[in-house]
Amino acid sequence: MLPRKKVEVTLFKTMWSITDGGCVAALQCHMQRLYAIVGVRFSRRLQNVMTLRIALIGECMVELSRQGDALVQGMGGDTLNTAVYLSRMLPDADIAYLTGLGLDPFSEELLARWNAEGINTQYVHRSATKLPGLYSISTDPNGERHFHYWRNDSAAKFWLNETDTEALKASLAGFYLVYLSGISLAILPREARQTLFSLLSVIKPHCRVVFDNNFRPALWDSFEEAQAAYREVLALTDIAMLTFDDEQALWGDETVEASLLRTQSLGVSEVVYKHGAKPCEVFTHQKRTEVSAEKVVQVVDTTAAGDSFSAGYLAKRLTGGGVEAAAQAGHKLAGQVIQHHGAIIPLSAMPTI
Amino acid sequence: MLPRKKVEVTLFKTMWSITDGGCVAALQCHMQRLYAIVGVRFSRRLQNVMTLRIALIGECMVELSRQGDALVQGMGGDTLNTAVYLSRMLPDADIAYLTGLGLDPFSEELLARWNAEGINTQYVHRSATKLPGLYSISTDPNGERHFHYWRNDSAAKFWLNETDTEALKASLAGFYLVYLSGISLAILPREARQTLFSLLSVIKPHCRVVFDNNFRPALWDSFEEAQAAYREVLALTDIAMLTFDDEQALWGDETVEASLLRTQSLGVSEVVYKHGAKPCEVFTHQKRTEVSAEKVVQVVDTTAAGDSFSAGYLAKRLTGGGVEAAAQAGHKLAGQVIQHHGAIIPLSAMPTI
Repeated sequence: MLPRKKVEVTLFKTMWSITDGGCVAALQCHMQRLYAIVGVRFSRRLQNVMTLRIALIGECMVELSRQGDALVQGMGGDTLNTAVYLSRMLPDADIAYLTGLGLDPFSEELLARWNAEGINTQYVHRSATKLPGLYSISTDPNGERHFHYWRNDSAAKFWLNETDTEALKASLAGFYLVYLSGISLAILPREARQTLFSLLSVIKPHCRVVFDNNFRPALWDSFEEAQAAYREVLALTDIAMLTFDDEQALWGDETVEASLLRTQSLGVSEVVYKHGAKPCEVFTHQKRTEVSAEKVVQVVDTTAAGDSFSAGYLAKRLTGGGVEAAAQAGHKLAGQVIQHHGAIIPLSAMPTI
Repeated sequence: MLPRKKVEVTLFKTMWSITDGGCVAALQCHMQRLYAIVGVRFSRRLQNVMTLRIALIGECMVELSRQGDALVQGMGGDTLNTAVYLSRMLPDADIAYLTGLGLDPFSEELLARWNAEGINTQYVHRSATKLPGLYSISTDPNGERHFHYWRNDSAAKFWLNETDTEALKASLAGFYLVYLSGISLAILPREARQTLFSLLSVIKPHCRVVFDNNFRPALWDSFEEAQAAYREVLALTDIAMLTFDDEQALWGDETVEASLLRTQSLGVSEVVYKHGAKPCEVFTHQKRTEVSAEKVVQVVDTTAAGDSFSAGYLAKRLTGGGVEAAAQAGHKLAGQVIQHHGAIIPLSAMPTI
């Protein structure tokens, strides 16, 4: 008789391939029934094997916003926003954030906030010499918001240089899905970016990659450098979450078709176009699905609209939803997020998806 | 007859050479009498020619200190502290701060604070792409203070790269004295540091240079690099304000004599050793003057003790005081500063010097 662990893993892998990774919750349910039949207790160990594990790679910064004469400390980062919403929507999943922090009180506070959101912080690299990036939000007399960044020397920029890549490869291999964005790539020095691509290509056979294009020209030395990096990551990507405005800014695309053709030709099987308040489009295997958002009467702050859309979309896809239901979930969460100030809405305001 | 301006300048230069730059206030007084005799009105134009002009070069950063849950914005920088105290003690002088800032609200606030202190900010370079450096002060559970810096990409680090050096040379040539510190040098990239040395050597025949050794190992790549830079600046320096602890840290000096020998051999004619609460020592032309500080009963915060000592010392030297009176003034101001929290004490707490 095979040892129990081997049985579990074999079953799990088989179910994975059957469901094509689309429905881990359904898979868990099947497995539970299966084990009930074969008399194996649904133990803690099994739960560990069964847990949906997602790694998000990127940077979260300290946010300073002015309130009267004082500065209030918050946090901000596209991938972290997605991590928070994924963690809230998938409370049984293991949502890990992979980044660099320092040993300073700002880093401690960020960690505490992430832990409070149920995010797994065990893979956060703590640098002895670097600090987290920092940015300020200020509002000018016309009510327009301005952002200023102290991030060029941040711990998140250099964590891959300071990390043992073999150990990281082993850690990453244990995740079902890796999520990263154009910002995750942009902040890395070229060498570290190549290290990341190598890691992703090694774990690729067993791991899904989701990429959000979030293109920030100011973080790149040149369009050529950015385009090369995007090509590399898209060639490893299963699901691309694209904002068409960013596609235009980076590639000069005039139509969604032009962007889609390039993205699909790089091998991305599921391409999602976020168009803000307008219907989003999802392209899979020659099929186009358009999904409208419910009208939001009062938009308060569009911060993290795209990040939360991605989280809603993925949460649905990973629990058995098709692309249409996933897009609806994305719209629903984003629609709620933009009715609140800041990137992270109160827990009580979370919609049921 | 010579044109009036030429007369003024000639007289001014003559008086400068007579007084050896030691007493500009006395010089102003002489000039006023002279002009009264020759019937020339002590005009605005004359005042401009007569104004004691001091340029301080360095970096002032945004300071964030925690008060409860909020962060309070302040400012901090060794040379800026000296500039503030010089400006307060020499209200008729032109105290200019030469540095880089951005176009952001933090930079605006720093500028406003400097202007409020009567500091001339016309030579501040405003970078379109950089921000001021930033640091936080936090206090751990043992009451120990910790500093964290976001300064590696600051406007003050790169302002010399972005500035027209010919124009800067012309501006600097109009100053009677240039003041800078080891930190002013440490933050500059190597090339910019060499540019600064070239500028100083060009203006040197007409301008005094005062250097405060403030050695911060963390800001230097190596001791060798720091020592080379200190040697270059000391060879251009008229008055060196040295903290012996920093001399030991940089050079490994075991005695003040060892430090003095090196400093004098580089051509510094007036060497001041600050020894904290202990008597300071001033060395000029083979003469040693030791001056005790009055005992401070309650030391609250030693921040800016050295910076304010330098300001008190210079303010006295530049208004006719000898080295003993200058050292007393330095002690008096520093003794007051350490009885208050923070680098800059309230105006009402300024001692009469």
